[in-house]
Amino acid sequence: MKASISLLQRASKHIDKYALYVPKDGVFPKGFKVASHATGVKKNGNLDLGIIRNVNTSRKASAAALFTTNKFKAAPVLVSKKVLQVTGGEGVDAIVVNSGCANAVTGDVGLKDAQEIADLVNAKLGKENATLVMSTGVIGQRLSMDKIVPAVSQQFEGAGNSNFKDDFESWLNLAKSICTTDTFPKLITSRFALPNGTEYTLTGIAKGAGMICPNMATLLGFIVTDLPITPDALKKMLRSAADRSFNCISVDGDMSTNDTISMIANGAVDTAVIDEAHEYFPQVQQQVTEFAQQLAQLVVRDGEGATKFVTVNVKNALHFADAKIIAESISNSMLVKTALYGQDANWGRILCAIGYAKLDNLQSLDVKKINVSFVATDNSEPRELKLVVDGVPQLDIDESRASEILALPDLEVLVDLGTGSEECQFWTCDISHEYVTINGDYRS
Amino acid sequence: MKASISLLQRASKHIDKYALYVPKDGVFPKGFKVASHATGVKKNGNLDLGIIRNVNTSRKASAAALFTTNKFKAAPVLVSKKVLQVTGGEGVDAIVVNSGCANAVTGDVGLKDAQEIADLVNAKLGKENATLVMSTGVIGQRLSMDKIVPAVSQQFEGAGNSNFKDDFESWLNLAKSICTTDTFPKLITSRFALPNGTEYTLTGIAKGAGMICPNMATLLGFIVTDLPITPDALKKMLRSAADRSFNCISVDGDMSTNDTISMIANGAVDTAVIDEAHEYFPQVQQQVTEFAQQLAQLVVRDGEGATKFVTVNVKNALHFADAKIIAESISNSMLVKTALYGQDANWGRILCAIGYAKLDNLQSLDVKKINVSFVATDNSEPRELKLVVDGVPQLDIDESRASEILALPDLEVLVDLGTGSEECQFWTCDISHEYVTINGDYRS
Repeated sequence: MKASISLLQRASKHIDKYALYVPKDGVFPKGFKVASHATGVKKNGNLDLGIIRNVNTSRKASAAALFTTNKFKAAPVLVSKKVLQVTGGEGVDAIVVNSGCANAVTGDVGLKDAQEIADLVNAKLGKENATLVMSTGVIGQRLSMDKIVPAVSQQFEGAGNSNFKDDFESWLNLAKSICTTDTFPKLITSRFALPNGTEYTLTGIAKGAGMICPNMATLLGFIVTDLPITPDALKKMLRSAADRSFNCISVDGDMSTNDTISMIANGAVDTAVIDEAHEYFPQVQQQVTEFAQQLAQLVVRDGEGATKFVTVNVKNALHFADAKIIAESISNSMLVKTALYGQDANWGRILCAIGYAKLDNLQSLDVKKINVSFVATDNSEPRELKLVVDGVPQLDIDESRASEILALPDLEVLVDLGTGSEECQFWTCDISHEYVTINGDYRS
Repeated sequence: MKASISLLQRASKHIDKYALYVPKDGVFPKGFKVASHATGVKKNGNLDLGIIRNVNTSRKASAAALFTTNKFKAAPVLVSKKVLQVTGGEGVDAIVVNSGCANAVTGDVGLKDAQEIADLVNAKLGKENATLVMSTGVIGQRLSMDKIVPAVSQQFEGAGNSNFKDDFESWLNLAKSICTTDTFPKLITSRFALPNGTEYTLTGIAKGAGMICPNMATLLGFIVTDLPITPDALKKMLRSAADRSFNCISVDGDMSTNDTISMIANGAVDTAVIDEAHEYFPQVQQQVTEFAQQLAQLVVRDGEGATKFVTVNVKNALHFADAKIIAESISNSMLVKTALYGQDANWGRILCAIGYAKLDNLQSLDVKKINVSFVATDNSEPRELKLVVDGVPQLDIDESRASEILALPDLEVLVDLGTGSEECQFWTCDISHEYVTINGDYRS
């Protein structure tokens, strides 16, 4: 009983994530406007509908998206997939998101509802196949169309579409409108210059916070930019960025029916269009990957009930796939995650999770070559605390230093396989009492 | 905060598992004797050393075992594996188990320690390669040989090995001596007759209670019987039984470094030796499988912090492997397990887990044919509450009946794939606040 109380007390010492991770201002790409609304689907009256519009008319926008691989794909996933297939990613001008209801496993009626929302926005835009739809929330319940449809219409009323804005507050509200169990809205912005001397802007929004698993989670994310780029190049870039960001995070190992990461590039900055062969393509890809990593990390930081942000760094593997599956196995282990929560230096569980990783190729794991350390991410010394050296467990580990590192809200688990030069970083969090509370009563 | 309190209150209403699942007496096979001892490895002074001996001398005993597939195999696993390789499973007369320390990831020194214990018992028995060793507890710490070695020796002192007994109390103490976070010792016994008119006895002992995952868990289990059977037939029988029992349970999805299920058949009942071709073999196999299922289910019932025992029954699959992986995916889902804890009829999470199961063959899953129900296991009606019928979610589910079923300590999740005739049953439990508490502070 004593342990229980001490852990609960520890969990109650919340970090003020809102203050830490929600920006006070930002830079936003040209030619995008947003609106959000509280339709009443969320019982608490919070914002639950958001619309992003491309209002640039100088050229057609490019869009790309990655969807869940879950076999029960939600209706909005099916509808959005079709839009991208039909258009080839050209001319998509709006994303409509609702939270509170996932419109998943709702059969034909759910598909009809999602299509109706897309059609409504298309009609308002005077275009066809120009709208992506996304939903997040409870599975298996029908959308409250009586609340959502009038709310969508209402956004397009008023002279000059005055409900759509591009100020910081409006973007932050958009980020709020897609939240479910998130404790803070996830909004990041960035400006970068290419060698042509021109600056472009990226804005990213995401929601977590449970069902987070490699190959995407109950994760909605979108990135918009004013860079001009072809649909094919955008798709390639998004796939690569997601493989190094949204596909490298874990909260609870569940993969949802609704996961969608999408990107719209409207080319509102009037420079030459970038394609895959363009000399700037690698640099843009790098920028977008780092940006996606920042956004994905925010999702882990807001993992349901999480008190810790942990980077699992697996390096010197013979194959990248092996490094990734080992990082994933550690990141998903319930026993590693609860030990991290309890600040228990039970590093044996880390080795255990490495040991049951389903390796494609055994060559990356040599139990005589493995090194495992905890690494502090503040400036304290010694930065690296070696737990296993060349396969030999260090039986005289400095437990007080281990406790210091484990008490940090940010820390790293470093695994050096010593068999090659490939590496993979994964981002994960601990599993707390609060996680159980949130997910035990989610629908209530 | 309200949800948190209500869930904690619910969790505190503990079922008295000890009274429900610990037998008051039992039947034990001829020719086995046991001893147990508190060596002081467990800080609380509880029993932490157990020895089973075959004392039948009419013929050589047969032994078989299945070990963890974790790549970091604990020292006792490596030592025991070698014993079975060298002997072909013939003439193994003792199993020594310690709890409190897993002797895993302890390198060469750990291997030496495990071998020393086996050698000590061999010397006491006056035999070679006759002892299996098992350990369970914290990973990465060295065995306290100063406590264990004298305690092992001590058991063999006294006239006529008087420390070894075959009464109910001694068997129950043996079951207690292998517990770690278990809340009750797991001991079952059974007597069955073959058509030859002779009765044979099975006694099974197991420990859980976390790190429980398909393909065995931090699970130690042994079954002893006085049936005469060849080592090869025993091995085949144990493999088949484990595939339908210990490999069909899930507590938290972690697989340990120490998992071992072993069986010794000493043939103390003097009838013809059974081999794979024997007419009674299928019947014996059936008996042992059902017995192993009972034992495996006890491990789930004592899942760390578990408040519910859930049978996941996937039927009418095209392939058995598909049925198993779908059952496993549901059984391991954190979101399904927390919803069960919260008694939340969030069946969408069940479909979600089915949807991300890594199917070998997609043919077993047709989203238009799937049926999902909650099934009550008491005598209340309607026994089956249909949630999804032929792929169509039932939007007017009787939520009060759903709540009644979810409030039961035992319930079934039934998935009918409607694509074939194969089926698989899995046994799982919920994930509670208590699970997090236990695993956050395990080493303390």
